Amino acid sequence: MHDYIRDGAAIYQRSFAIIRAEADLSRFAADEEDVAVRMIHACGLVEAAAHFAFAPGFVAAGRGALQEGAAILCDAEMVARGVTRARLPADNAVICTLRDPRVPEMAARIGNTRSVAAMALWEAHLAGSVVVIGNAPTALFHLLDMIEAGAPRPAAIIGMPVGFVGAAESKEALMAAPYGIPWAVVRGRMGGSAMAAAALNALARPGL
Amino acid sequence: MHDYIRDGAAIYQRSFAIIRAEADLSRFAADEEDVAVRMIHACGLVEAAAHFAFAPGFVAAGRGALQEGAAILCDAEMVARGVTRARLPADNAVICTLRDPRVPEMAARIGNTRSVAAMALWEAHLAGSVVVIGNAPTALFHLLDMIEAGAPRPAAIIGMPVGFVGAAESKEALMAAPYGIPWAVVRGRMGGSAMAAAALNALARPGL
Repeated sequence: MHDYIRDGAAIYQRSFAIIRAEADLSRFAADEEDVAVRMIHACGLVEAAAHFAFAPGFVAAGRGALQEGAAILCDAEMVARGVTRARLPADNAVICTLRDPRVPEMAARIGNTRSVAAMALWEAHLAGSVVVIGNAPTALFHLLDMIEAGAPRPAAIIGMPVGFVGAAESKEALMAAPYGIPWAVVRGRMGGSAMAAAALNALARPGL
Repeated sequence: MHDYIRDGAAIYQRSFAIIRAEADLSRFAADEEDVAVRMIHACGLVEAAAHFAFAPGFVAAGRGALQEGAAILCDAEMVARGVTRARLPADNAVICTLRDPRVPEMAARIGNTRSVAAMALWEAHLAGSVVVIGNAPTALFHLLDMIEAGAPRPAAIIGMPVGFVGAAESKEALMAAPYGIPWAVVRGRMGGSAMAAAALNALARPGL
């Protein structure tokens, strides 16, 4: 029998203590710190914190929206699965439209990715939502294009696509966008569904 | 309108080309290379390859098992969601028992995590399976304890829990285990559902 810590709550507490001891969180506001700790927890890499950036007011805007019942719009099923339902303050809807049967045909028609095609089904939920992009750079670019074209505005954007083609660029575009919608990003190539869901889970409830 | 690549297949191809150009894959056998490329793609970090390790015969054992219809046992819903069903060679069952309603009570009774409690429901599927652990170190420790206690043997183990408490240790234990079941790991704290699912997706079909 292997000897290991079996108490889930104790594992979380010890993990967060190690992260606080090792990571440089000095750049972050107090309410951003818990978000950063959970994001580090999701990727196992304290050095990742150097790439985190938060717009002013992101935590307040995201948390406030969730408390008022905001829908959570996810670009990927893995992101949606990573949202801890028990932490959500208002039994918020967690929506991912990627597997809608209309999506493949829509993607072919518009000449874009399935992730982007799926976002045509977001329109009714976008106003005041929290958007969580943890996979597709194309989805983040398209979200910006939708807002620029007059789509309803989300309350906050977690922009954390991962990868080698467009991920870094899409996040820089979000940071440079003039819409005044608060965002959180992981600059560069890193990101992904686990970090994006961790950021949402941190917003969902104050404290770790 | 932002200018970005909209062709999903082209994005994959360019991503894999960038990874092959930048990552040091020289340690890996030819059939391990594609697995490593997909794992890097999942985390956005070419440097992660330094922590990848594969037991001899891992790719052949895992791929062979999947072709013969092996079940895929996942420790977390995010891992299960990350498995690309269209790549599976035999419409393989993708099983995650974590949300079984009996699990919370079982966890309390055995004094272990829900991830471990859920594995009591794996027994009927374990023989010849491919086990994919992308979240809980406790699940990987417990898998080793189960096998040591005589449980049916999986054909291959993807051992990639992430985190700060037990993750590194559980993966070292897997590498040191005398069972002769081939494994793939990310040594240290890194890992996670996306990398674990990427390794499985690479096994599922030769080529990228």
